[in-house]
Formats: sequence, structure tokens, C-alpha cells
Amino acid sequence: MRTGIWLIGARGSVAVTSIVGAAALRARLVAPTGCVTELPQLRGPALPGWSELVFGGHDIVTTPVLKKADALAAAGVLPGRLVVALADELAAVEQELRPLPAGDTQAATARRISADLRGFRDRNALDRVVVVNVSTTEPAAAPHPAHAGLAELTAALAGPAPVLPPSALAAYAAFTAGCSFIDFTPSTGARLPALAELARARAVPYAGNDGKTGETLVKSVLAPMFALRNLRVRSWSGLNLLGGGDGANLADPAANAAKVSSKQRVLGDALGYQPEGTSRIDYVAEIGDFKTAWDLITFEGFLGTGMRMEFSWHGCDSALAAPLVLDLARLTAAAHRAGRSGPLAELGFFFKDPLGDGPSALAEQWATLAAFTAGLAS
Amino acid sequence: MRTGIWLIGARGSVAVTSIVGAAALRARLVAPTGCVTELPQLRGPALPGWSELVFGGHDIVTTPVLKKADALAAAGVLPGRLVVALADELAAVEQELRPLPAGDTQAATARRISADLRGFRDRNALDRVVVVNVSTTEPAAAPHPAHAGLAELTAALAGPAPVLPPSALAAYAAFTAGCSFIDFTPSTGARLPALAELARARAVPYAGNDGKTGETLVKSVLAPMFALRNLRVRSWSGLNLLGGGDGANLADPAANAAKVSSKQRVLGDALGYQPEGTSRIDYVAEIGDFKTAWDLITFEGFLGTGMRMEFSWHGCDSALAAPLVLDLARLTAAAHRAGRSGPLAELGFFFKDPLGDGPSALAEQWATLAAFTAGLAS
Amino acid sequence: MRTGIWLIGARGSVAVTSIVGAAALRARLVAPTGCVTELPQLRGPALPGWSELVFGGHDIVTTPVLKKADALAAAGVLPGRLVVALADELAAVEQELRPLPAGDTQAATARRISADLRGFRDRNALDRVVVVNVSTTEPAAAPHPAHAGLAELTAALAGPAPVLPPSALAAYAAFTAGCSFIDFTPSTGARLPALAELARARAVPYAGNDGKTGETLVKSVLAPMFALRNLRVRSWSGLNLLGGGDGANLADPAANAAKVSSKQRVLGDALGYQPEGTSRIDYVAEIGDFKTAWDLITFEGFLGTGMRMEFSWHGCDSALAAPLVLDLARLTAAAHRAGRSGPLAELGFFFKDPLGDGPSALAEQWATLAAFTAGLAS
Amino acid sequence: MRTGIWLIGARGSVAVTSIVGAAALRARLVAPTGCVTELPQLRGPALPGWSELVFGGHDIVTTPVLKKADALAAAGVLPGRLVVALADELAAVEQELRPLPAGDTQAATARRISADLRGFRDRNALDRVVVVNVSTTEPAAAPHPAHAGLAELTAALAGPAPVLPPSALAAYAAFTAGCSFIDFTPSTGARLPALAELARARAVPYAGNDGKTGETLVKSVLAPMFALRNLRVRSWSGLNLLGGGDGANLADPAANAAKVSSKQRVLGDALGYQPEGTSRIDYVAEIGDFKTAWDLITFEGFLGTGMRMEFSWHGCDSALAAPLVLDLARLTAAAHRAGRSGPLAELGFFFKDPLGDGPSALAEQWATLAAFTAGLAS
Ligand SMILES: NC(=O)c1ccc[n+]([C@@H]2O[C@H](COP(=O)([O-])OP(=O)(O)OC[C@H]3O[C@@H](n4cnc5c(N)ncnc54)[C@H](O)[C@@H]3O)[C@@H](O)[C@H]2O)c1
Ligand SMILES: NC(=O)c1ccc[n+]([C@@H]2O[C@H](COP(=O)([O-])OP(=O)(O)OC[C@H]3O[C@@H](n4cnc5c(N)ncnc54)[C@H](O)[C@@H]3O)[C@@H](O)[C@H]2O)c1
Ligand SMILES: NC(=O)c1ccc[n+]([C@@H]2O[C@H](COP(=O)([O-])OP(=O)(O)OC[C@H]3O[C@@H](n4cnc5c(N)ncnc54)[C@H](O)[C@@H]3O)[C@@H](O)[C@H]2O)c1
Ligand SMILES: NC(=O)c1ccc[n+]([C@@H]2O[C@H](COP(=O)([O-])OP(=O)(O)OC[C@H]3O[C@@H](n4cnc5c(N)ncnc54)[C@H](O)[C@@H]3O)[C@@H](O)[C@H]2O)c1
Ligand code: NA
Ligand code: NA
Repeated sequence: MRTGIWLIGARGSVAVTSIVGAAALRARLVAPTGCVTELPQLRGPALPGWSELVFGGHDIVTTPVLKKADALAAAGVLPGRLVVALADELAAVEQELRPLPAGDTQAATARRISADLRGFRDRNALDRVVVVNVSTTEPAAAPHPAHAGLAELTAALAGPAPVLPPSALAAYAAFTAGCSFIDFTPSTGARLPALAELARARAVPYAGNDGKTGETLVKSVLAPMFALRNLRVRSWSGLNLLGGGDGANLADPAANAAKVSSKQRVLGDALGYQPEGTSRIDYVAEIGDFKTAWDLITFEGFLGTGMRMEFSWHGCDSALAAPLVLDLARLTAAAHRAGRSGPLAELGFFFKDPLGDGPSALAEQWATLAAFTAGLAS
Repeated sequence: MRTGIWLIGARGSVAVTSIVGAAALRARLVAPTGCVTELPQLRGPALPGWSELVFGGHDIVTTPVLKKADALAAAGVLPGRLVVALADELAAVEQELRPLPAGDTQAATARRISADLRGFRDRNALDRVVVVNVSTTEPAAAPHPAHAGLAELTAALAGPAPVLPPSALAAYAAFTAGCSFIDFTPSTGARLPALAELARARAVPYAGNDGKTGETLVKSVLAPMFALRNLRVRSWSGLNLLGGGDGANLADPAANAAKVSSKQRVLGDALGYQPEGTSRIDYVAEIGDFKTAWDLITFEGFLGTGMRMEFSWHGCDSALAAPLVLDLARLTAAAHRAGRSGPLAELGFFFKDPLGDGPSALAEQWATLAAFTAGLAS
Repeated sequence: MRTGIWLIGARGSVAVTSIVGAAALRARLVAPTGCVTELPQLRGPALPGWSELVFGGHDIVTTPVLKKADALAAAGVLPGRLVVALADELAAVEQELRPLPAGDTQAATARRISADLRGFRDRNALDRVVVVNVSTTEPAAAPHPAHAGLAELTAALAGPAPVLPPSALAAYAAFTAGCSFIDFTPSTGARLPALAELARARAVPYAGNDGKTGETLVKSVLAPMFALRNLRVRSWSGLNLLGGGDGANLADPAANAAKVSSKQRVLGDALGYQPEGTSRIDYVAEIGDFKTAWDLITFEGFLGTGMRMEFSWHGCDSALAAPLVLDLARLTAAAHRAGRSGPLAELGFFFKDPLGDGPSALAEQWATLAAFTAGLAS
Repeated sequence: MRTGIWLIGARGSVAVTSIVGAAALRARLVAPTGCVTELPQLRGPALPGWSELVFGGHDIVTTPVLKKADALAAAGVLPGRLVVALADELAAVEQELRPLPAGDTQAATARRISADLRGFRDRNALDRVVVVNVSTTEPAAAPHPAHAGLAELTAALAGPAPVLPPSALAAYAAFTAGCSFIDFTPSTGARLPALAELARARAVPYAGNDGKTGETLVKSVLAPMFALRNLRVRSWSGLNLLGGGDGANLADPAANAAKVSSKQRVLGDALGYQPEGTSRIDYVAEIGDFKTAWDLITFEGFLGTGMRMEFSWHGCDSALAAPLVLDLARLTAAAHRAGRSGPLAELGFFFKDPLGDGPSALAEQWATLAAFTAGLAS
């Protein structure tokens, strides 16, 4: 199954780490560490192989993929030797990247995005294409009446005023072109009734939101631990320090708010109540891609005794995210082939703020995912 | 179902916290925080109620329960107001405590222990009695040929030389008296072929070993997290600082070794390989019952990128252990009534080093426990 | 030397801990742990003895001292047995507390404050009185032309509009009554040219600002360590989590800003440059008086190698502050007697944001303090 | 002043980082971050310049300097670009390295070592040579009567049995050849009465022991902080996790014991009492040169309130040590020229376990060092 992965934000850190990594896996230069779909419980012929993946994408900047890969190597995100060894493959991907189109109306823009997607599919003889949003996190979008239904939306898009934030326009264009869509960011993406309608109409699946890579991943196993032991969490406070492009953007209060709220949600879900405390994000340029998160949890045990736990997480965000992007693309393509459409709630394992009403504890999300993947194989 | 809980080490911190806590729960002075059997998924009429529990026990020291409870209150382990309010209940338990008997042979000692258990059962009109070992951790026991079968063991116990460590002798006496047995410590307890044979013969269940209350509990959720994300743990090192009676004993190298090995086992089980690193225990008198554990985990992600996580756990050991002692006693009594005998592998959720071949990840242990408990109710 | 300590905010946590502590020291119920003036290098007859201290103060709430002391004991800030043993002494202090006066103009208010101070001094036959501001931190005050000189200020105070924030009005009234003044908070206090003029005119000394008790104390030794080793600090970020009255107030953005800026100043001073990063304060009610601060420092060593340090500080703020309040009062009273007036820059050891141009490294501040104290004795 | 630096252990991590760093400083490829002698308070013409330093040394392995430098670059200890740029300089140093000589008696070995030192000095027209021990830490040496005086030692060295551990033999040979000596390790080095006698006789200075680079450096500022605030440290426990050659050696219990005892000494010195707790060192190969140390400090404040502090230090040991090796060599050469001989107690700033009776607080050690350096200039 030749599968296209079209990256929105294709010249960013997560995107380029994904591109280099997929090429390295195809060339058997590395082990698939961090790839969930390579675990014995999930791997199998239902998923496209590493050599069946083809990359393309949109971005609003023009930094060459090779240059970005070099910068990531200098920052310790990936080994420089891979960039040298895979220069030809990266040059080939470069040929499939396009500037984000802009039309007079959002309808026109969407048509051009769809055209880019179809061109990519045809040029590369792809069975199907998965569009993955790994672009800059947007501020929370303003509500608009046209979000409520597909007919209203179609009408409004033809007008002069913008109706959809870029992530939702990308989902619209993807669905229109018969592509599935994954939102790896906390942006709006496909989360509008009008887009759900469109996805059903075109019989395409979608998944999201916001890849779960660091502090929230840890929360998704620690919070259930407290719950299963009937220990009462009194407060849970955190600070995330990060630089890089994502960090710079999150220094913007509006983007920050979107991200922070998706970071505490897991606590309420797993515990059944919302403990005191907030999770902050601060931009510290010098920390770059190696985010440090610190969390303090105070909790109450038997007879009211107070106790505490602290953790520090020092993770490379792009290295944590990239294999999940590949996993998600493989799973979504396979689901598409298997005839699944609409929201893939079974992929909650990968997200901070999953679509649908699935479990929030990582172990339960895993069980759901394993069953889902087994279903695709049959 | 009137249920006796006979504590070996009945004047120690875990025992007295359990005794105070059960009385407080019966008197509805506290919420059952930390009691797993009070979670909606487990609670139910199959388990003995708080007012059906009666305490007794053996110890080798004579500190009054009330005095120990006062000391625990002064150390912040439990609220002093409970000790005041429950003074009468504690005095009643005091009447049921006995010095650990000693006979000329281990057979004679075991007979006296069994006699104490039968007396306790009769005096209090108990349906059944659960013996729980919460005494000082023993050094690893020397192997002995008589451990291999019940006939050999019975013969050897009648001889002048000691054959069994105290924890195993307690299990022997418990089984002989028709009582179930729980080993909350890493000591030998019931883990000998001869004792397994005896338990089957008497149709009594048993469970163990070593209550999972702190650092190992956290490991049992974090190690699966790394495994499910296909992240490779390179090293996992830890230091546990604790005072109190348990800490003082663990300063002894032999006891320390027994404990340390049960603390790293979960990693190999959950990860499928044993990462570098050890978990140390140091005695620091001034830290008392509020243990501090620190762990450093280094791991490898996509394309070989190295990352790290640290956590500090600052927990009150006795407050974490006591509700589990109550949970285990309730569950084991119910299993006994339901006709279960032999090792209760389904109680692995509670132990660092569980009997049988169950899962090591906390979430899977939970699922197993929930199914087991549901089975008891039907 | 009978010395009065008049506390602005006399019913708050720091104030009541100081009052209980001084009484306990006088009664020889405790050792002077945390009292710098009891170190061999500083102690001596130049300082008023514990039995020579008399307490009074203003507050805007009416919670009895005894009740507040009980609450502090329940929160673990001080031992309940002291409150019981010192009930009579606390009742005596209660008699010397007054509601904060309010007049038609700020001049009238100041007159009443001064009258309270004189009454306290006369009633108790005190040699001198030190006024200590331990009230709620104010938002940064609006500048006003009348702050520039004493004549202008005197004129403006007689007008209907408020000219001074409460902390500065307290300093004004203290100086007018011939009392020295200490600002333990980051509020304006005596830091206005007009008040400096008044202090010189009345020949009274003053000191401030903002007691250095936790994270900033640690910074004042760690930042010099990096500087002396010629290691370049790249970023220094911190999060302070605290509850209690002080925490609740600091949840207010304006008060928070005042505090945060006094917390990072030490870095620029000690390092000679301002590293990236901020120090945040978050209110977490459940954490109460036991503040937890976490700091991450990234730094660069030889040949550009990047390294990092983290620390967590888990301190009881009032227990750290109270002995310093007593130290400061003893030292300021002695300085007053020795004829010192104006800002006591030599007391920088005690403050986050000291008056004058003294050193910011703790060790140098200590040397300065020791020399100053020795000078008072001669 | 042309100054030779003769490294015992010249092919190890600290040695090679020092060699690369000095060459990079001479070539002005890097800033002197981490070099204390480049701070404004210390730098000056009394010290040899970067272009006046010439390197040679002994080792027992034959790994080429260039190969070791490459390995250090791969491990992130130093930038690979420096190794490329300085290949010629490293090749020149390679010419000055010699295998550690071995004679029939220790006297014969010492003669050969001295001959190597004289050859190095003559060949390179050096004004003076500083011998620096950066070789593997030895187990604590067995006492021997001949250590007590120079005459006895001279006689014993001529006998067949070894009398001195290698570090002390190196000091003996250095002094004999008129060279100064620095022990950067916790080994015996010059710390024997017989060697003190020899140093005085030859009028050469020496310094040591055990470079203070990580956890102990932090202790040397935090312990005084607690002391100056009259806070009582109840316990101080630590764990050091490190790999690399030094780590592998410290896995040996005897070497470990030598190191651990020099790590806790600073606490007793700075506090005036020895708090509970120990500092452990564990070998974790995968952690390599980037040591992680974690310390927990529990302390008592006003009215007995218990509090705590934790820190984690994540430092690159060789990058921290190398600039200090250069600093020590420059200072010792300048002291030698200025006519100083015997132990240089004023260099305590650099050592965990300094010679002589100097202060243990870093700030006081700094003041001593600054005065000492100023004295060399005059
Ligand atoms: N790395 C992680 O662990 C992780 C986890 C969850 C979510 N995310 C999200 O993934 C996204 C990418 O992160 P990153 O670190 O690669 O950020 P980045 O800043 O390196 O890359 C973002 C890229 O998006 C491009 N872009 C911006 N607006 C665009 C638009 N309208 N259309 C197309 N491209 C656009 C930018 O030019 C840039 O190249 C962020 O939204 C981040 O919040 C990352
Ligand atoms: N608290 C926890 O979190 C936890 C977790 C797992 C296991 N454990 C284990 O539980 C046990 C109890 O811990 P604790 O903190 O109460 O210790 P403790 O020292 O306070 O109590 C142990 C008691 O056992 C008694 N004892 C010793 N030998 C005995 C014997 N042969 N027969 C009868 N009594 C004997 C002692 O006199 C003492 O009263 C320890 O073995 C500990 O390792 C505790
Ligand atoms: N505890 C520490 O470590 C520390 C360190 C530095 C500074 N401080 C400062 O000390 C002050 C006191 O801290 P706390 O924890 O005792 O706070 P708190 O809230 O317990 O006490 C403050 C008291 O001031 C009173 N008050 C408020 N406005 C007043 C006014 N205008 N006049 C008189 N009284 C007034 C309040 O009613 C309250 O009783 C705060 O400003 C805090 O920022 C504390
Ligand atoms: N790096 C630091 O922060 C630091 C701090 C204090 C002390 N030290 C000490 O510095 C020393 C060097 O550390 P490293 O990390 O470079 O270790 P390393 O293992 O990399 O280097 C030691 C070198 O000494 C050589 N050697 C061993 N025995 C010898 C002998 N008898 N004569 C000559 N050479 C010999 C070894 O072959 C090796 O090349 C260690 O003793 C260490 O404890 C290091
Ligand atoms: Na910590
Ligand atoms: Na930490």
C-alpha cells in the first residue's frame, strides 16, 4: 500500500525529524525505537511498510529540509551521520514540498490545497494520502455559525471573510480531496460539526488532537496510579520550560492557553475530580528542543496523611513526536483502507486531548489501540 | 462474616496503623482513602465489613499498642485525635496480643502458635482468620532439604535444629490451624514447596510477597509507559532513604539484599530486559517513617536520542501500607470463603514480588484483581 | 535595653510565629535555631536580650493571636505545646494590639499611628521601638511628585487624596514618633526620598526590603558559586508554589510582579549579567505555609559544554522568616542606640532587595554584617 | 615564563580535555569559560600565558591523544570541530608522552620518572615544570614506617618491596627533579611527612587533593548557607551516578571509600558537626562522563520545624575539571617562581580535601585565593 504523508508545517522540527527518521528506517540505518507500530502487539502486514511511505507537504517558510535537518543534528535531536547518509532522499522530499497556497477566498485556497494533494497522489501513484498537521499551534479559533453544518460552511467559505482557522481549512481541503487527516497539534483541525459531516460524506477517517509526548504522557500513567490506589490527589502543578519554534510560539498567551488546557484535562478524566494547580509553559530559548518539565503532586493517604511526589522530565520533543507521527499515519492509512471513516477515537493513546469518549489512562488506551489494530488486520 | 486479622509483628508501625485505621473506619471517623477495596469496582458484600474485623497478633516486643499509636501520631503518621478517640478500641486489641511463643523444637513452637490462633478464633467467634506477616524483614533463609516436601518438613521440625525462618514457621502454623496467610514482607513466608503442599492439603489460600507501596509502585506504572512507547530504558538507578524500625533493619546488609532484589524485578518483567542500575536503601534515622526515594531513568528515543527522567517520592510508608493490609485481609478472607486455596496470584497488584506468573504492569494487575474480586461476589 | 517591636500585620503568620518564638526563647523552651544573632560571631551584650523584647502592633483583621497560633500549630508551623505553655504571654501581647487607625487625611492617620507607637513606648517604659512591616505585600505604588521631598510630602498628606501606600505611611509615622523601621516585605516602605529625609532629620535608622528566606536565599549562594568558577549561567527559571495568606495575596498579579522582580535581581548582581528565565509564584491553597520552590539552572562550562542543575526547596516560610524578624529588630534597636541613622545597608544579608549598594553574595553580606555588629558592640 | 605541565594519566579524560582546551585557548578558538584564573580578580602577568604552556606526561595505556579526543567529542564532552582544528597541536603533544617507567626498585623507577621530567624540561627550554596527577584514583595506601621521614624513605625505596603508592612515587620523583606537584585525585600524592620534608629541601611547592567539581562544590556553598542562617542540618545524603573511566574505577570499593570520605568532610568543617547521612558513588556505564548527583538535605528551623531541600547536579566531569587543572598549573608555577615552597594551603578553593587548615566555605576559600594571587603579582 503506497501511502503518502502530507505534512502541514513540513519544514518544522517534528516534520523534518519524521522525514529523516522514515528514510533512516527504510534504509535500515536505525532501529525503530519510539515507534509504537513496531511493537509485537501492533506490527503486521495491515500497515504500510517503511518503504511504502512518500512525503510531501506545505509550509509558510522556505528553509530547505536539508538545512533544517543539519540544524536538528547540531542541536542533538538527531545524529548528523544520518543527514549525510540520506541527503539524496531528503532532496527528493524537497521536490514534493510546496508553499501554502492562498486564494482570494478560503474556498479558493482550499481548492488549491486539494489540488496540491491530488497532484502529490497522482505523481507518486499513491493508494492513499494522510494529511498530518504539525504546523505551529494556533490561538483558539473564534466560533462562527457556519461551523455548525456543511452547507453553511460551504456557503461561507465562498465569501470574502475568513471562516476557518488554517488547521480547519487544511482538514476541509484534505477531506474534499479524499484524504484522511491527523491533527498532531491542539489547534481546531477537524473538530467542527461541519467537518465531521464532510468526513462522513467522503468516507475518510481522522484523528487528533495534540500528540502526547512528555509531561502529559507521564500524567496519563501516574494519575491512574493514584486513582487505582484510592489516594486522593490534592494538587498537581507543573512547569514546562522549552525553546525551539514550538516554545517561541507558546510564549504567545493565546497559543499557550490552548495548550495548557489540553495538558490538565487528563487529570480530571483519570481521577474523577480536578485537583488544584495548573501546568505552565515558559519559553526559554536556550533550552531548545530538550524540554524540561517539573511537576509537584501532593496527595493524601490513609487517615489523611499528606505526601508528595516530584518529577522532572527532560525529553527531546521532536524525537518523541516524530515516531508517533509515523505511527499515526500508518494506522490511519490502514483504517482508511479498512473502510473506517469519521473520528478514530481508538487512537487516544497518542493524544493529549483525544477525539471521542475513550479512556484517559494510558494502559486502557493501549488495550483499545491493540484491539483496533488487530481489527484492521482481519 | 466475622473475620480475624492476626498480625505477626503486631506492635510495629504497619500493624498499629492498620489497627487504628480499621477502628477509625468502623467508627466512621475517616474516609477510606488508600483502601483499594473501597473503590466502586471492588467494593461489595463479598468482603467483610469494617465492623466485622477483629485484631490480634504476636510480637517479640511489649510496647503497648496505645504507646506505639501515640508515637506514630507524634511522627505525623496518623492524627493524634484518632488515638484519643479510639483509646478503648485499642485497649481491646491489646488484650488479643500475645508474645511470640517459643518451644523446644520448631514443631512445638508451631503448635503453640496454632493454639494462639485457634484461641483467638474461638474467643471471638470468628468465621475465619487471616494471618498477616508484618514483622521485621528477615535475611534470606538458608536452603534446607526438608523445604522440598511436607513429609520431610514435618519430620525435620520435630528435630532440635531450626529448619524454617520465623516467617515460614508462622505460615506453617497458620495453615495447620486452617488460617489463610499473607506475607507483606520480602521474607520467605509461604514460598516453600512443603508449605504449598500443606496449604493445598488444608484448603487455605495465601498471598505475597512484599507490599508495593512506594518507589516500586511508581516503577510499576512508569516502566510499562516506556515499554508501550517502545522507548529503550538504558539505566534506572534509585536511592531510598528511610528511618523507622523498617529502615533500621534494612541497614543490615542481608535484609537489604532481600529487599533490593525484589525492588528491581519489576523492571525486567515490564521491559523485557534488565536495564543497568541498582536500587539502594540507606538508613537515615532522622527521616523516620517518611521515606524519600529518588530515581533517575535514562532512556533512548527515536534515532538514538538520549533523554532522562527523575522522580522523588516522599511517602509515609506505614500510611501507604496499612490500608493495603486491610484490603489484603478482606480479599483473602473472601477468597477463603469462596473456596479458593493455594497461592492467590491474582493479588499481584499489591506486591513487589508477587506469587505466580501474573503481569507486572499495574494496570494489568488491576484488571486481574477486578476480575478476581468480581468472581468472589458471584 | 527594653525594646519594643511593633508589628504592622501583627495577626499574620510571620508576626505570630515571631511573637510565639520570642516568648518561647525567653522562657527557654526552645533553642534559638534560625536566629542569626545567636551565632557566636554576632551575639553579645550590644543586642537586647530575649527578656527585653515587648510586642505590640497593628492589623486590619481581628483574629486573636491565640487562635492564629493554634492554626499555625495545626499546620505544623510551630509545636502546639508551645501555644499551650505560653498562653498567658500571648494574652499579654493581645492587649498591645490595635486596629490600624484611619483618619480623614493621611496626615491624620499618621498622627494616630504615631500616637499608638508613643502610647506603647510609654506604657511599657521602652528605651526604643522598632516598627516592622510584616503585613500583606502591596501592589507597586503609583509615583507621586510629593515623594521627592519632605516638605512636599508633608503638604500633600494634609490633602484629601492618598499620597502614600500604607507601608510608606507606616514608615512616616514611625520616623515621626522617633522609631526605627524595618520593611520585611517588598512594599514601598521607607524607599522614598521624602522618607529618607525624614529619617535623617529624626536620626532614626531603617532597613529593608523583603526578607530573604527561601529560593532567593539559595540563589544568593549558588549564583556566586557559578560566578567564582567562571561558569556561564545560560538560564535560571523557577516556580514557587505556596498557599497561606501570603500566597493568596501573591495570586494577585500586581503583588506578584513586585515580588518576582525582587527575586531575580540577585542573579544580575551576582553574575554581572541577567540570564534568561523568570521566577514564577503560583498560589496553591493546599500547600499552605510549606512552600515548594523548584529551580532549573542551565550553564555552560569549558569549551562550551552545556550542563544543568535543579533544586527543590521545601521550606516553612513563617518559620524561616520569624527568627529573622527578631534578628532585625535586635540589630536595628542596637544600631539606633549606637547613633546610626538612615538606611542600614549593612543588613543586606537579610533581604532579597537590600537598601544601598552592598554585595549580593551571601558570604560577603555576612562579612559586612559581622563587621557592622562588631562595630555596635564597641 | 615557559611552563611545562606534565600529566600523570596523560591519556585519560581530564588530561586530554585539558590538552585540547589549552590548545584551543592559545589559538583563541574558545572563551576561557570555567577558567578561574581568567576572572578579573585573578588574571594578570604573574601567571604564565596560554601560549607559554607545554604539555607532556606519563600513562600506562597507549591510546593516542587524538583518538581519545575524538571519543570525548563523540561523548559530547568537547566540540568535534576543535579536535579537527587542533590536530597538529595534539600530534605535537603526543610526541611528549611516555609510558610510565618501571625499574627493579622504586628508587630506580623514580630515577627514570625524574629523567623523563628533566628531558621534557630541557628539550622544551622550560623555566619550570608542574607535575599534575590526573591518573586513576588509588585505593587508600597501606601505612609504612618509612613514610615518616626522608632518610627512612630513601633507604626503603632502594629495597625490593614497594613502599609508596604510584601517586606518591610520582610526587617523590617530581620533587627530586625540582618540579612542583599537584594532586587532582584523592590518592596519597604528596601527603606523607617524608615527602613534605623533600619538598622543603628542594624548595618546591605542592597542592591537593581531589579537584572539587560537582556535588562537593555545591556542598561548599550550601553548607555555609545553613550555618550562617543558624539552621540545623539533620541529614545530608547523596548519590553520585557516573560512568567513564573514573566511574569504572570507583566501582571498586577501596577507591570508592577514599573518594566518599573526601566528599562528606566539607559538611563537618562548614557546619561544625557531622550530620547523618552518606554520599554514595555508583557506576552506571551508560551515564558516561555526564555525572548525575542527587542530594537530599533535611534541616531544622525556628521552633524545631523540619524542612528539606533536594538538588540534582548534571555536570560533565571532565569539562569541569580541565580548566581547574590549567588554573592550578598556572598558579603553582607562579608560586614556584615567587619562591613559595611546601603545601599551598591557599589553593583550597580547588579541592575537596585541601592540604592545610584553610576554610571550607567556598567564599572564604575564594578570598584566600584572591589574596594569594595578588601576592604573587607583587
Ligand atoms: N514535539 C512535540 O512533542 C509535540 C507534541 C504535541 C504537539 N506538538 C505540536 O506540533 C507542532 C509542530 O511542532 P514543532 O516543534 O515542529 O514546531 P516548529 O515551529 O519547528 O514547526 C512548525 C512549522 O509550521 C510552519 N507553519 C506555521 N504556520 C503554518 C501554516 N499556516 N501552514 C503551514 N505551515 C505552517 C512553520 O513555518 C514551521 O516550519 C506544534 O503545533 C506543536 O505544538 C508537538
Ligand atoms: N511500610 C511499608 O510501606 C512496607 C512495604 C512493604 C513491606 N513492608 C514490610 O513490613 C514489615 C513491617 O514494617 P514496619 O515499618 O511496621 O516495621 P517495624 O519495625 O515498625 O515493625 C516490625 C515489628 O515486627 C516485630 N517482630 C520482629 N521479629 C518478629 C518475629 N519474629 N515475630 C513477631 N514479631 C516480630 C518487631 O518487634 C516490630 O514490632 C517490614 O518487614 C517491612 O519491610 C513495609
Ligand atoms: N514568610 C516569609 O518567608 C516572607 C519572606 C519575605 C517577605 N514576606 C512578607 O511578609 C509579609 C507577611 O507574610 P505572612 O505570611 O505573615 O502573611 P499573612 O497574610 O499571614 O499576614 C499578613 C497580615 O497583614 C495584615 N494586613 C494586611 N494589610 C494590612 C495593613 N494595611 N495594615 C496592617 N496589617 C495589614 C493582614 O490582615 C494579615 O494579618 C508578606 O508581605 C510577605 O510577602 C514573608
Ligand atoms: N573529572 C572530575 O571532575 C574529577 C574531579 C576530581 C578528581 N578527579 C580525578 O581525576 C582522575 C582522572 O579522572 P578521569 O576521568 O580523567 O579518569 P580516566 O580513567 O579517564 O583517566 C585516568 C588515566 O590514568 C591512567 N593511569 C592509571 N594508572 C596510572 C598510573 N599509575 N600512572 C599513570 N597513568 C595511570 C589511565 O590509564 C587513564 O588514562 C581520577 O582519579 C578522578 O577521580 C576527577
Ligand atoms: Na526533585
Ligand atoms: Na529533580
